[in-house]
Amino acid sequence: MNILIQNGTIITMHNRKVIRQGAIAIEGKTIIDVGKNRKLKRKYGKGYEKMDAKGHVVIPGFINTHQHAAMSLLRGYADDLPLQEWLEKWIWPIERHMTPHDIYIGALLTAIESIMSGTTTVNTMYHYTPEENEAKAFTEAGLRGVIGHVCFSWRKKEDERALEDLAKNWHNKADGLTRVSVDPHAPYTVDPEYMKELKEIREELNQKYGSGKAPIICHMHVAETSDEKEKIRKAFNLKLETGVMEYLDSLGVLDKHVIAAHCVSLTNRDITIMKQSEVKASHNPISNLKLGSGISPVPKMLRKRVTVSLGTDSPCSNNTADMFEIMKTTAILHKGVTKKPTLIPAKQVLEMATIEGAKALSWKNEIGSIEIGKKADLAVVDFKKPHHCPQYNETNQLVYATKSADVDTVIIDGKIVMENGQLTTINVEKVMEMAEKIKVRLLQRLACNVK
Amino acid sequence: MNILIQNGTIITMHNRKVIRQGAIAIEGKTIIDVGKNRKLKRKYGKGYEKMDAKGHVVIPGFINTHQHAAMSLLRGYADDLPLQEWLEKWIWPIERHMTPHDIYIGALLTAIESIMSGTTTVNTMYHYTPEENEAKAFTEAGLRGVIGHVCFSWRKKEDERALEDLAKNWHNKADGLTRVSVDPHAPYTVDPEYMKELKEIREELNQKYGSGKAPIICHMHVAETSDEKEKIRKAFNLKLETGVMEYLDSLGVLDKHVIAAHCVSLTNRDITIMKQSEVKASHNPISNLKLGSGISPVPKMLRKRVTVSLGTDSPCSNNTADMFEIMKTTAILHKGVTKKPTLIPAKQVLEMATIEGAKALSWKNEIGSIEIGKKADLAVVDFKKPHHCPQYNETNQLVYATKSADVDTVIIDGKIVMENGQLTTINVEKVMEMAEKIKVRLLQRLACNVK
Repeated sequence: MNILIQNGTIITMHNRKVIRQGAIAIEGKTIIDVGKNRKLKRKYGKGYEKMDAKGHVVIPGFINTHQHAAMSLLRGYADDLPLQEWLEKWIWPIERHMTPHDIYIGALLTAIESIMSGTTTVNTMYHYTPEENEAKAFTEAGLRGVIGHVCFSWRKKEDERALEDLAKNWHNKADGLTRVSVDPHAPYTVDPEYMKELKEIREELNQKYGSGKAPIICHMHVAETSDEKEKIRKAFNLKLETGVMEYLDSLGVLDKHVIAAHCVSLTNRDITIMKQSEVKASHNPISNLKLGSGISPVPKMLRKRVTVSLGTDSPCSNNTADMFEIMKTTAILHKGVTKKPTLIPAKQVLEMATIEGAKALSWKNEIGSIEIGKKADLAVVDFKKPHHCPQYNETNQLVYATKSADVDTVIIDGKIVMENGQLTTINVEKVMEMAEKIKVRLLQRLACNVK
Repeated sequence: MNILIQNGTIITMHNRKVIRQGAIAIEGKTIIDVGKNRKLKRKYGKGYEKMDAKGHVVIPGFINTHQHAAMSLLRGYADDLPLQEWLEKWIWPIERHMTPHDIYIGALLTAIESIMSGTTTVNTMYHYTPEENEAKAFTEAGLRGVIGHVCFSWRKKEDERALEDLAKNWHNKADGLTRVSVDPHAPYTVDPEYMKELKEIREELNQKYGSGKAPIICHMHVAETSDEKEKIRKAFNLKLETGVMEYLDSLGVLDKHVIAAHCVSLTNRDITIMKQSEVKASHNPISNLKLGSGISPVPKMLRKRVTVSLGTDSPCSNNTADMFEIMKTTAILHKGVTKKPTLIPAKQVLEMATIEGAKALSWKNEIGSIEIGKKADLAVVDFKKPHHCPQYNETNQLVYATKSADVDTVIIDGKIVMENGQLTTINVEKVMEMAEKIKVRLLQRLACNVK
């Protein structure tokens, strides 16, 4: 289908260009033109479905670079708890009862919530199983994604099989909508030897299934809390004299296709290494605050020109998949803690949520901005609402005042996946019903301790 | 009109009682019964308009304890700037061109946004003029409010006239919907003598127009930034050896009807004084972060049992009037900066936004909880949405996952002011049009420097 979006304000995120009274022409999956309305309207007449964006702002869809999509099933199940108690007494015991089908439904729920709030690409790390999985959910919803399988020292054989299946069946599949990643869980759950092996596995999988344009990347938690070195010592009897990123560098596992989530507890040297090795960061401020993990040194990373993207983390440590909340929190948090109100201005935050996210996933050639030749991944945001009134500056407005409910239309890969608030790909109510049933069953199984 | 709300989950905020399959009976302005649906449905049949709240959660409307309602006109006009530059080069120059009619329209816009996001009472501080003002706007919208007039040393005579007119015409008016306050701007703009005079004026006005049940209160900025003592020294050649709250106490101006906004830069002694003198705090985390003011020691105040309520501050330092955002930010911020994930749990935040707000405005006898005999100020929140699925705990859900757009019905003083997202009192589009026109005129006047 060909589409001409008309009369909108286009925030391109390409050279920070904003086009008022603008238009976007889409042919199939691809943006073929961007410019002033009066010009494009003459060029693209017949054969283009017209979409009126008057009073709306059109942005590249958000790129959420850290999720565990299936965990929406546990949203609100356990809050306000110390991290270890939360994980060991609440999350892990109930997760043991989740079936592949549960994972699929949880990921569908997150896909729905993501699309409804203007997110078009999600980087998710969870347990992959061939039967049913997050990749299936994302492609059904029409959501672009990088699907990872999370690896632990205690299940190397299982991981290896899962990674092979994942890469073979889902990398660069669904006509390029889906890519995959190799995900060592964290430096304290993946021993140094396995960490190196996983890099080799990634290289092998890339040779078989990847390409320079569509690489299989690595997605990992790094330095989420300040006691990570202590956890590594306990797990592997390994006493680090350096920061955790420097330790990973010493193993030779860092490169430009590695995305490190959280990055809360970093040394200055760690940040220098990230710059040198071109490791990308996913900043997850809401999760870090809510779990009491601390505050990532984002201004320092930005000063050193590290690529910093944004992520929500899972809906059970946040508890939403809302990138508007993440943008606002990022914009205000670092100003507040440093007492520097000029830090990370709105336009920079919007870059972190879009084009920097694309860089972080090694996907910049296709997504992250509204540019001729890129995939048509767009969110159309309604600005005709009291909280958008009066209007001075659309970018500030997007970061400081826009709510996810203002998104009314979303296009991914040239396909309208939500129109006027209604998903076109998925029966939302049915998924909600199923999620509710799964919750009941999980709680029952937990009570009876039945696997 | 009498109303019976049925089939909802009622979060009463009275002894933390939650009633599932609950109902609320309202007669005129007042809640006359709260309980299980099956019981109330038999008792209140004929003569009660039925409202079905199935799949909804009913909460006491939020009490926003720090606003400058008219300033919605400047939302997004100036962001990401240092505080003094923001005030002196941006906000104050344009504010000089605001007419009483502009103030009225700005306050109407904030009233609309407040109601739409579930807020039923707003404590606002701005320039009062008899012709048109925030009180008129609030009563037209049906919003409960405490309307203040902000006082400065440089306009004592003018302030005195304004306060008299405000108290006479608006205190305990609109059938009790509106109350007023005497608002010294801040300790660095109100000299010590005037600070004392304003307390006397408040006492006189209370004798003429107030009552024990409906007192005229005092609303003031206190310790917003760490350089406030330096500002006081510069303004009044007064070198403080103590914290700012202790200084105010030494003037004898603190009492249980004083609400202090911000409270960022407090000494331990300041906090003890707040407890002893029963001064209430309005915590404004988004504004404090965005303007780089710092982080209020809320956990310390709570430990000392100071009443801490929540406020958005003006829509030009936030940039919304959304109390859900404030609740979530409060809940996560203090966990993150102290690395204590158990601090300020969801139920406590919800209290701060409702019943503690009522205490902070000396209005606890009538509002802040769903209780027999209190005014019917309620928000009905739709939980049948993907981001509310699955459901484990409604209170956690309200604080961590609910969005303002989930509020679909609001009742204030027994009157339905919003139903299914539509305001019943105000023509929203007309107000938006007028606000946009005022913006254009303000920018023109500023450009020409025409008063």
